[in-house]
Amino acid sequence: MSLPNQHTISVMVENRPGVLARVSGLFARRGFNINSLAVSATEDPEISRMTVVTTGDTRELEQIIKQLNKLIDVITIYDHTDENLIEREIALIKVHATVENRSEIMQLTTVFRAEIVNITPSDETMIIEITGDQNRVDAFLETLAKFDVLELVRTGKIALVRGARAT
Amino acid sequence: MSLPNQHTISVMVENRPGVLARVSGLFARRGFNINSLAVSATEDPEISRMTVVTTGDTRELEQIIKQLNKLIDVITIYDHTDENLIEREIALIKVHATVENRSEIMQLTTVFRAEIVNITPSDETMIIEITGDQNRVDAFLETLAKFDVLELVRTGKIALVRGARAT
Repeated sequence: MSLPNQHTISVMVENRPGVLARVSGLFARRGFNINSLAVSATEDPEISRMTVVTTGDTRELEQIIKQLNKLIDVITIYDHTDENLIEREIALIKVHATVENRSEIMQLTTVFRAEIVNITPSDETMIIEITGDQNRVDAFLETLAKFDVLELVRTGKIALVRGARAT
Repeated sequence: MSLPNQHTISVMVENRPGVLARVSGLFARRGFNINSLAVSATEDPEISRMTVVTTGDTRELEQIIKQLNKLIDVITIYDHTDENLIEREIALIKVHATVENRSEIMQLTTVFRAEIVNITPSDETMIIEITGDQNRVDAFLETLAKFDVLELVRTGKIALVRGARAT
């Protein structure tokens, strides 16, 4: 489901100013790029959950996780490598849909079970929403690449392990 | 659609290590909490798009935007205040679904057009996916609050303006 060397980790942190800067600073100091990051509140508004997708050496990542654990704002870290996950993300894609290609774009949207969420006829634009795991979103974006994609925004991945956690 | 004083901004940045730390550090230094953040690559893999949702004084935010514009890695900023947006986020919710309350949870899931994406009978857990704008996700989470929510993860909001941009 993931690219080689791609890691997904969830970091539960205190929801207060500066935490995000400290966590992302730790990745930056080790030269680790963050492919995607999604941060939002949890069932406890005092706690935020960060889902980090990063690419790099596994042992180097272990060092980063050790250092994250030392940060006072970090509550728990889940390294999802080899875990049985439910993964999701959304992308919104704005395309220039002309009279000529509009029906082809609509057919592809149906095939991928994506959804057209806005059409603005005056400037021939369309916004399409797709939800799924990373592979599905990537495949849809590849299919749309031959059209005129004006804007694209993705949430980045979120993930939960199937079943209750043993810990 | 949004809470009072809640602002959504999109920041297009160079996709390289350290950018996220610099951008989030700027918010932190002014004591601005980030309610949610979604960062991922765009149609151009060299460019990432950050969707920041923050709560605070409008004039203070204007100062932050000015400073963000001075960062070398920042390409463009869109302040979405008063814009006509398509907004989306996903939440994954793991609930303890017993024999007694399972059918009620399933009914609520249908009402909200959410989706059950995993059931683990051995430990009576269920993972539900909901997609929509912030109000819809919030309303569903409020409805589920009376059940035993074991884990919750949200992507945070992403947004596109309807129609082509004038700029």
